[in-house]
Amino acid sequence: MTLMLRALFGLAALAAASVPATAAEAPPPPLTISAQGSFFVGGRDVASESLSTLPAYAAAGTITVDQVYVRYQIPVSPTRTPLVLIHGCCLTGKTWETTPDGRMGWDEYFVRQGFPTYVIDQSWRGRSAGSPAAINAVKSGKANPDTLPAVFSAGREPAWTIFRFGPEFPKVFAGMQFPLEAQAEFWKQMVPDWSASLPVPNPTVPALSELAKRLKSAVLVSHSQSGIYPFQTAALDRSGIRAIVAIEPAACPDPAKDDLAPYKDLPILVLFGDYVDQSSRWAPRLKLCRAFVAAANAAGGRAELILLPEIGIHGNSHMLMQDKNSLEIADWLSGWLDKRAPVKG
Amino acid sequence: MTLMLRALFGLAALAAASVPATAAEAPPPPLTISAQGSFFVGGRDVASESLSTLPAYAAAGTITVDQVYVRYQIPVSPTRTPLVLIHGCCLTGKTWETTPDGRMGWDEYFVRQGFPTYVIDQSWRGRSAGSPAAINAVKSGKANPDTLPAVFSAGREPAWTIFRFGPEFPKVFAGMQFPLEAQAEFWKQMVPDWSASLPVPNPTVPALSELAKRLKSAVLVSHSQSGIYPFQTAALDRSGIRAIVAIEPAACPDPAKDDLAPYKDLPILVLFGDYVDQSSRWAPRLKLCRAFVAAANAAGGRAELILLPEIGIHGNSHMLMQDKNSLEIADWLSGWLDKRAPVKG
Repeated sequence: MTLMLRALFGLAALAAASVPATAAEAPPPPLTISAQGSFFVGGRDVASESLSTLPAYAAAGTITVDQVYVRYQIPVSPTRTPLVLIHGCCLTGKTWETTPDGRMGWDEYFVRQGFPTYVIDQSWRGRSAGSPAAINAVKSGKANPDTLPAVFSAGREPAWTIFRFGPEFPKVFAGMQFPLEAQAEFWKQMVPDWSASLPVPNPTVPALSELAKRLKSAVLVSHSQSGIYPFQTAALDRSGIRAIVAIEPAACPDPAKDDLAPYKDLPILVLFGDYVDQSSRWAPRLKLCRAFVAAANAAGGRAELILLPEIGIHGNSHMLMQDKNSLEIADWLSGWLDKRAPVKG
Repeated sequence: MTLMLRALFGLAALAAASVPATAAEAPPPPLTISAQGSFFVGGRDVASESLSTLPAYAAAGTITVDQVYVRYQIPVSPTRTPLVLIHGCCLTGKTWETTPDGRMGWDEYFVRQGFPTYVIDQSWRGRSAGSPAAINAVKSGKANPDTLPAVFSAGREPAWTIFRFGPEFPKVFAGMQFPLEAQAEFWKQMVPDWSASLPVPNPTVPALSELAKRLKSAVLVSHSQSGIYPFQTAALDRSGIRAIVAIEPAACPDPAKDDLAPYKDLPILVLFGDYVDQSSRWAPRLKLCRAFVAAANAAGGRAELILLPEIGIHGNSHMLMQDKNSLEIADWLSGWLDKRAPVKG
């Protein structure tokens, strides 16, 4: 094959890969669920005079913000503890759905493994509302530009390094498992992120607490930016929290500052992928999480930190729930939960 | 029962109603689907120097905007034409999911009736990304405040009248079917709306065209603000559009200005609820849609305008897919589609 033919073939393959409906794998068998739906947890009412600058919509009124959108599916015979899947920076609950190259997402796979599964959008993200009032106050001259919210999007070039697809855009780590041939579909998942303009803890945290109490027993599964949220939720109230799984957390609790009592006897897994030691962003975070795990266990905890390469799973990016071996990791995680956080009788 | 006891009971009922999990109705039988998932259609790359004002995230980079998030479920034996459910102003695809009082949404109900069902978030809304660049340009002093986007939220007090819960907040039309006891859950569905800052047609329109072509035969079901989108999509390209259902459209094509040729032989339903003649917002829009339907039919169209009270269904608000009789309306709509837009052999 000439270079030009190879180039053409490459383009065609990429185009095909960006259309999930044409994924080549045999389709999975039908899925039967006992229930599904969506609802909100959390939220507070805010009265504002700056909801609009348009004549067709009134500037004054009451809106609800800080609530968290939750979408769930329940297996016909649940055999495992409900999972709450919490996405990271600049993303939404889409993180856990169909992968960029059209394979099954963790949201469905875990339902098929017997887990009731709850996927959220963080507050002020996706289907969880924010407020435009700060923008409109500036647009209408009532406030100064420096009062505008710190809302940001991650460009793909810097995100490439953060997601550890390679050391820098567009270089790729050898053996990397992310489906880069479908990266165009992945970049479409990214949305503006208001979290830096929100209070600490993020309003998602009390909403997660409300959700855990409603579910009575839930595993809070975080990713990246949301890594600290389940820990903050447990510090608020342990009710309903069966275990914490922190996938590549941006932060773990700090044993030098944070009370570790909320984590006593709580099954905790901190999970990282591959190439972490080659990342100036992630290597220090891994180190701090190691320190947390050690300190938590010294204080009566049941925490564990796993690097996937240590258990023979290689090539994983920061987006390991979308990597080509994502279901292999899901299987391993199911096994960990069965062992460390089985259903309570 | 004393007045005070009645008041207490009322509060308890309201609290219960706001928790969908406790809905009193018998649960529906399990649901079996052959496939589900999510993907994006549309989108364009934008390079920007204003993605962030935070040191932790680079200001320069490339993002994708204008894409439309699509979530779908396919029945095991589809017997009907795929539906694309397109929400309206200040809302997301949540519109079609579980109702505020915890009943089944149209998204699932239509799957159970044999329709492959696709729920979208309009571009720049929900899980469909926008860009924060215009905000950051002003925040960092590179642009003037009047360049800020016209992004608005609808407060519940003005929205009350727009949604025709009553003539004005908090009055209620006699016999109104919206589950107002769960209104707190409904207000949580509302999100900021960027549509006024986007080009016309809205980028959702070419994305819908891409989706219709992929589905090969689809019924585009709009609501309110999105009412004009399916008509604009058909004007762009009829490929893949089997029929249009416009539920309480904010606008129909204007026979005085718009070419009606794209609607020749196309099954079109314009559907309105109750109390329309009591609404200064909706009565004129109904009148304009009547004029469109007449003109489209005079030009070889197959358009029909139905007011629900005319077919014996009473008390419907603007949010008729969430009203207490929402599934009765869905059944009627299924019947209309079977008659007017049956599956093509």
